[in-house]
Amino acid sequence: MANGTNKLRLVRLGIDTLHEFKIYIRKDCFVCKSEGFETETQVLASVNGHSIIATLNVIQSDILQIDEASLSESAWNYLGIKEGDYVTLSHAPQVTSLKYVRSKIYGNTLGQDDFYEIIHDIVQGKYSNIHLSSFITACARDNLNLDEIIYLTHAMIKTGDQLTWDYPSIMDKHSVGGIPGNRTTPIVVAIVASAGLIIPKSSSRAITSPAGTADTVETMTPVTLSTAQIRQVVDSEGGCMVWGGSLGLSPADDIIIRVERSLDIDPDGQMIASVLSKKAAMGATDVVIDIPVGPTAKVRSDELFIKLEKYFIFIGKAVGLNVYVLKSDGIQPLGKGIGPALEAKDILSILRNENHNLSELKNKSLKLAAILLEAGKKATPGEGFNLAKKILDDGSAYKKFLAICEAQGGFREPPSAAYTHDIIATHSGNVIEIDNRNLSLVAKLAGAPHDAAAGIEFFAKQGTYIEKGQTLYRVHADSKGELNYALNFAKTMPDIVKISRGAK
Amino acid sequence: MANGTNKLRLVRLGIDTLHEFKIYIRKDCFVCKSEGFETETQVLASVNGHSIIATLNVIQSDILQIDEASLSESAWNYLGIKEGDYVTLSHAPQVTSLKYVRSKIYGNTLGQDDFYEIIHDIVQGKYSNIHLSSFITACARDNLNLDEIIYLTHAMIKTGDQLTWDYPSIMDKHSVGGIPGNRTTPIVVAIVASAGLIIPKSSSRAITSPAGTADTVETMTPVTLSTAQIRQVVDSEGGCMVWGGSLGLSPADDIIIRVERSLDIDPDGQMIASVLSKKAAMGATDVVIDIPVGPTAKVRSDELFIKLEKYFIFIGKAVGLNVYVLKSDGIQPLGKGIGPALEAKDILSILRNENHNLSELKNKSLKLAAILLEAGKKATPGEGFNLAKKILDDGSAYKKFLAICEAQGGFREPPSAAYTHDIIATHSGNVIEIDNRNLSLVAKLAGAPHDAAAGIEFFAKQGTYIEKGQTLYRVHADSKGELNYALNFAKTMPDIVKISRGAK
Repeated sequence: MANGTNKLRLVRLGIDTLHEFKIYIRKDCFVCKSEGFETETQVLASVNGHSIIATLNVIQSDILQIDEASLSESAWNYLGIKEGDYVTLSHAPQVTSLKYVRSKIYGNTLGQDDFYEIIHDIVQGKYSNIHLSSFITACARDNLNLDEIIYLTHAMIKTGDQLTWDYPSIMDKHSVGGIPGNRTTPIVVAIVASAGLIIPKSSSRAITSPAGTADTVETMTPVTLSTAQIRQVVDSEGGCMVWGGSLGLSPADDIIIRVERSLDIDPDGQMIASVLSKKAAMGATDVVIDIPVGPTAKVRSDELFIKLEKYFIFIGKAVGLNVYVLKSDGIQPLGKGIGPALEAKDILSILRNENHNLSELKNKSLKLAAILLEAGKKATPGEGFNLAKKILDDGSAYKKFLAICEAQGGFREPPSAAYTHDIIATHSGNVIEIDNRNLSLVAKLAGAPHDAAAGIEFFAKQGTYIEKGQTLYRVHADSKGELNYALNFAKTMPDIVKISRGAK
Repeated sequence: MANGTNKLRLVRLGIDTLHEFKIYIRKDCFVCKSEGFETETQVLASVNGHSIIATLNVIQSDILQIDEASLSESAWNYLGIKEGDYVTLSHAPQVTSLKYVRSKIYGNTLGQDDFYEIIHDIVQGKYSNIHLSSFITACARDNLNLDEIIYLTHAMIKTGDQLTWDYPSIMDKHSVGGIPGNRTTPIVVAIVASAGLIIPKSSSRAITSPAGTADTVETMTPVTLSTAQIRQVVDSEGGCMVWGGSLGLSPADDIIIRVERSLDIDPDGQMIASVLSKKAAMGATDVVIDIPVGPTAKVRSDELFIKLEKYFIFIGKAVGLNVYVLKSDGIQPLGKGIGPALEAKDILSILRNENHNLSELKNKSLKLAAILLEAGKKATPGEGFNLAKKILDDGSAYKKFLAICEAQGGFREPPSAAYTHDIIATHSGNVIEIDNRNLSLVAKLAGAPHDAAAGIEFFAKQGTYIEKGQTLYRVHADSKGELNYALNFAKTMPDIVKISRGAK
């Protein structure tokens, strides 16, 4: 239905709508009138021979002229638009894969091609937030059977880029989230690579947490590498620690996760497809998955853990991955630091075998490394932990870590914050509960992750006895404003660290 | 968590996002930095003591200064903002009713208070499109039991305004949609009011169709009346035909319908709650519901019709409504006109007892009126149709129609379009199928409903024999551009009126 006369000059208003493609046109523009366009109309927008489907927001002000249009930043970049380009508009064709979404809404089982079409259209930006949210909701609960989760995972892999390696086996690692101060990846990578295995590790940045692994590693070495650079690093050192966001692996996953966050749901089926699609796209063959179990973690019961373990292993096999699952303590932070630089300091102090109070974080890292050492036949069953411990204790892991950092562009010490303030126990007693969610929020209000040095140092482990006046946690911030902001909130949340009253 | 320093000056960018409250801030603005705000963050925005929750889009251009913010039109109007007002921003508190949405996603049954909280928050603008779409999807399929639909209906009534009348019984009427050229309301209102019953009819404007009843009536008389004016009209004439949109009846319904349209679903539970909540809010006691059944209508099978009839009657009773259901022909347009003025002309020609080819539209109007005449005890059971026919044939209905128009601000003849073009049969044969969806689209491309005179005159009833060269339908438009645009599309859709090949 396109017709050549529906041309408007493009102006960059710079409106960031994340993945959602939006187009902005004057309400009184002739195209709106002749097409009967209105807000929420799905419009086919063509620029220099490339087309997208975008959702219309009409403009009732002079930030646009009557013959001008604008696109959201995501659409602008997707189409590679230059200011002054022209866009041709028409009614969007039906997005045919939406009929499969409706079929799922009405409880039907979808096939392999149905999932591929849906995920392909999502990656092409054809789904508005309304469509995405409906698809995610329709697939939640237990509405996906094992086959459907496999189809979904395959579709997410196939609609993105995929790395292939000339090594017999490729190690990888993932932690199911929910717990702050749980940063084991760099230690695991260093140990596993130092043992001679291949572990090209890509990680994400924080979306709603105070720090992602990529944010943490970035305080010590560059993490935004091209695929060619990653190959160089891995070929020379056996491992890397890079940001996966620029590699185009399972792009549908990045879009779906954003919507799940604003719904505050993380349905098992999509979570499994998300994790395994990223690993398969990275070219992994053997993956260890850390699943913390605890009252405020993502996995809150042994029943759910057992189900997830079964699914991860079964679906992993279906997409060509050997999956190993580790059940870990998800009650509270394992490390002291929460925030990019503070978590990096924990990692360095473990790698450097300094005197520290980080035995839990260290032990968990060793357990994860052990599983991969045994999977990669560097240790016989049961001997992985001792080998991992030896590699860490004799400094080989630290040496390998520095070598990887050098290969990625050089090592630097993580920064320290300009301001700190201690939160003090107002009475003595035992620490009976940690509110991980609000603890993370304090770290974010202090500036993490956008200020790398900002965050929290945590000293009040659950179960320990605290004297009145003792420091529970220390807030780090780069500006007085953010420090005060975090402290104001912390004051309103005295039970972030809950301390029993009465005798020891 | 609000803090007095997070103040930004408001500038009106005039971005229309319909019901969704959006806030726009510079990415490099100090509030974004200190709060860690990013696109899709839910923000509590307070202006002159009033607060809303809005979804953030960060701006990466100079359409806003660093100390400025803007709000979408819906939020701007909801808060009654004046240019230069200041907005204070902080992290939005958890929208607690979202936990009931999540509970429904996971298949649980919700209670009366749960539905009230959800609908209340929706009306307060606290749900983003992502939240709305998830709620609607989670309630689709057969995920609402009878009690839940009743709770939903009650909540939609209670969260809006409600009219009360000093008359023992109040008549009302609704048509379940899907079929163009099916405009009976003004005829039914005229007959029923002329018989001495009270029928304060409020109607909607088109959302995705070529004409809503309010658009059609507006070509003959004003329809935007205040509640006080409506009472005057009804007290003097017994009936009215007004636009319901400004009356604040079941406001949640208007929001939910928009999202359902872009999902292209109309789940039974929400549809029933939508219809009955509007009627109850208008103060009705007796409602006739017209359900067209046909292959391209909303209701496509007798099974579904029977289920809906049962639900409408049962749930109606639960919210204090006597509901009567009429099953009607949903195969094709009943009238000739599609579009505001053209449908108005059909109505006038029936009311004026002119020679016309509109017996189906007339008969259906009489049947609907008959049910209300009997419900209102103006006719004994079985005698309603004859009484309705008499009132129409002897001109009383037309007299009453004109009187109601006078009371609403005066009667005028509907306008005629500047341009028309006939779509001609390219071969002879029987009309075997009508594509109602694309027929409606041609009318919209011609300018309906925003150009009241635009639309279609339809001459090719299903089952009739058409000679080659005979006019199938006539396109009306107010501008050459829109006429050509509609014709270009019509050319690509030769089977809008499907004609058999071969002998008569």
